[in-house]
Amino acid sequence: MRRDAERIIGESIAAVLPDRAVKEALQGKVFARGRLYVVAVGKAGWQMAGAACNILGDRIYEGICITKYGHVKGSLERIRCLEAGHPLPDHNSFAATEAVLRMVEGLSADDTVLFLLSGGGSALFEKPLIPGEELADITKQLLDCGADIVEINTIRKRLSAVKGGRFAEACAPAKIYSIVLSDIPGDPPDMIASGPAWPDESRSAHALAVAEKYGLKLSEAAARCLRQETVKSLTNVETLVTGNVDSLCLAACESCRKLGYNPLLLTNRLSCEAKEAGAFLSAIAKTHQSSEKSLAFIAGGETVVHVTGQGKGGRNQELALAAAEGIAGLENTAVFSVGSDGTDGPTDAAGGYCDGRTKDRLTAQGIQIHRVLCDNDAYTALAKTDGLIVTGPTGTNVNDVAVVLIRR
Amino acid sequence: MRRDAERIIGESIAAVLPDRAVKEALQGKVFARGRLYVVAVGKAGWQMAGAACNILGDRIYEGICITKYGHVKGSLERIRCLEAGHPLPDHNSFAATEAVLRMVEGLSADDTVLFLLSGGGSALFEKPLIPGEELADITKQLLDCGADIVEINTIRKRLSAVKGGRFAEACAPAKIYSIVLSDIPGDPPDMIASGPAWPDESRSAHALAVAEKYGLKLSEAAARCLRQETVKSLTNVETLVTGNVDSLCLAACESCRKLGYNPLLLTNRLSCEAKEAGAFLSAIAKTHQSSEKSLAFIAGGETVVHVTGQGKGGRNQELALAAAEGIAGLENTAVFSVGSDGTDGPTDAAGGYCDGRTKDRLTAQGIQIHRVLCDNDAYTALAKTDGLIVTGPTGTNVNDVAVVLIRR
Repeated sequence: MRRDAERIIGESIAAVLPDRAVKEALQGKVFARGRLYVVAVGKAGWQMAGAACNILGDRIYEGICITKYGHVKGSLERIRCLEAGHPLPDHNSFAATEAVLRMVEGLSADDTVLFLLSGGGSALFEKPLIPGEELADITKQLLDCGADIVEINTIRKRLSAVKGGRFAEACAPAKIYSIVLSDIPGDPPDMIASGPAWPDESRSAHALAVAEKYGLKLSEAAARCLRQETVKSLTNVETLVTGNVDSLCLAACESCRKLGYNPLLLTNRLSCEAKEAGAFLSAIAKTHQSSEKSLAFIAGGETVVHVTGQGKGGRNQELALAAAEGIAGLENTAVFSVGSDGTDGPTDAAGGYCDGRTKDRLTAQGIQIHRVLCDNDAYTALAKTDGLIVTGPTGTNVNDVAVVLIRR
Repeated sequence: MRRDAERIIGESIAAVLPDRAVKEALQGKVFARGRLYVVAVGKAGWQMAGAACNILGDRIYEGICITKYGHVKGSLERIRCLEAGHPLPDHNSFAATEAVLRMVEGLSADDTVLFLLSGGGSALFEKPLIPGEELADITKQLLDCGADIVEINTIRKRLSAVKGGRFAEACAPAKIYSIVLSDIPGDPPDMIASGPAWPDESRSAHALAVAEKYGLKLSEAAARCLRQETVKSLTNVETLVTGNVDSLCLAACESCRKLGYNPLLLTNRLSCEAKEAGAFLSAIAKTHQSSEKSLAFIAGGETVVHVTGQGKGGRNQELALAAAEGIAGLENTAVFSVGSDGTDGPTDAAGGYCDGRTKDRLTAQGIQIHRVLCDNDAYTALAKTDGLIVTGPTGTNVNDVAVVLIRR
């Protein structure tokens, strides 16, 4: 079943690589007669920029790609490739963003900015309106308390000179053609990478409510930013959302079907606590384990983790390990979960795989799953049961997919 | 949709009332020629005892029924009906259990004890080996920390003179015919009501692991009890498990089908955190809301709640309210969850109902769902949106069922 898992993961991610999406979005597209600039931002930035290079060639006047460390896989013609911090923005995020803002300064109405956006852009593309250290601290507070990505972005866009439509304002009067690879279930364009080129639909009141909900510690300057409204209308932007978690889930279903499983898409909007999602999926597995047919249950989205321990892991690894408790002893059952970007939390793994023997193998090594989960240390436990899924950076970023396999 | 929910709940619970199950279990049953005693214990005790009275009449020599306060609905021939504390045992639990032990003292090998067991028996049927106050304290510690019912019972049976097979030992050499209505997913007979008439399959080591997992505060006497092994073999017992959560879920599926929904049984082994189960179900609802057919997703089992607040509620109410956040704005969608025994937590409601308008109605009253959930105050919030499901004691007890309805 481990081999089935690897194949499903490989095929699902291959189906959402940005190359084809960018190609289709650019085919037949006519730009204004001025200069064409490329700004590629996000974990899939290098891949998207590369696809644009292949298609547009020397039609591109100049460009900048900002992606996560380790995600630039070679140089590109006319496009400077920069790496920066994620999930927390760092000085390279700020410097690269300044370079982009300098590039798009003083453009004319005939110029176009091809804006290739993918998840991770919130951290990578940033010019904070407060000191970088405080921004880092607030982001860390939000990640640690288990705020979801919508809540995090509602705060971050108000603390930024580029988020919440402000980047599009900086490019005006030039046109922006924005191709978006969505990493948020439901594809809200104002939320993906905090919507640098989309009118902000959230209100200041929402931001203040999130700050109160989690008891965020804020300076007076930051609190003042939260009270300011963001851009509510933009006339120079055209946006196309291409890949998303729906495509990832459908590809997983198709791959399962080819391997002989009867796939059922449970959801592409998963957003609950990672380990509880694992428990829910294992409850489904237990109920259907004596099915006459091979079954696959697919759940896509992005779970959250409330960090309480000092261990190493990520939401996909926690989900899989939590499921291991529930499917213990079921010979024909596996649960795995993977981030389509190839990274899961601050680890080198993309996700985790567990089956009916995982718990026994851990017990034999003196490891109790509930303790590992309390310590957020799923990586260490999975490493001891060959349960780490490692893909390396994939070049795409459309959320996660979790799969229950029951083999007859 | 609220009317659909009421009908599905009514039909599902009607299908698992114990009357028919007891009748079928007794039909054609030949008892040994001695005296026939009836001991009915649990939330369904009165209903089960009544069914036995109707069938066996004056074949019964003497009997005692112990059930929860408010669950005795009339007197029964030859069977004393006693009420006691639940979920925490009280002095009436102890006194009623002493009365049962006196009744079965000195029986002969020709006598039979008809033992009608249902959930809730762990608290109602109890003779503690430690002071009652400490038992109450340990039980409360276990409930508050979110331990599941298996963990709770593993501890409790070692602190008791009747649990873990010890009641069957007390009846010997008389035979025991045990009819069990299961309130634990998977129907482990050593766990239901802590298995008074079933060899204990858990080991002392398990009990000590649970105590360590949750950091239980224990006296030396209690710790000594946990280290003692329980009964591992019984020769005088015949057991029949009748109703359970599977029957409840299948009845819910059937009821949904009759109302025009296409039902899908997700699981009958739900055991995760209540509000996370609600979030998961709402994610399923969002994904399938534009389905061409009316759909129903059914999840049975027993979720847990980690009590952190001072409010009023129960696991079913929390599940439904948590789902309200996710399905907000979806006109054609409802999520409800109900305990088959008619009680949910320490409230007079059996569960909760929410639909796409619930969140807006709460917001209009200044109520934020996440705050209500932090305060474990779902009852108060649901009361303000006509979201409480009230059935009164139903006479059965086979876990909970949660349903997502999507109407076309």
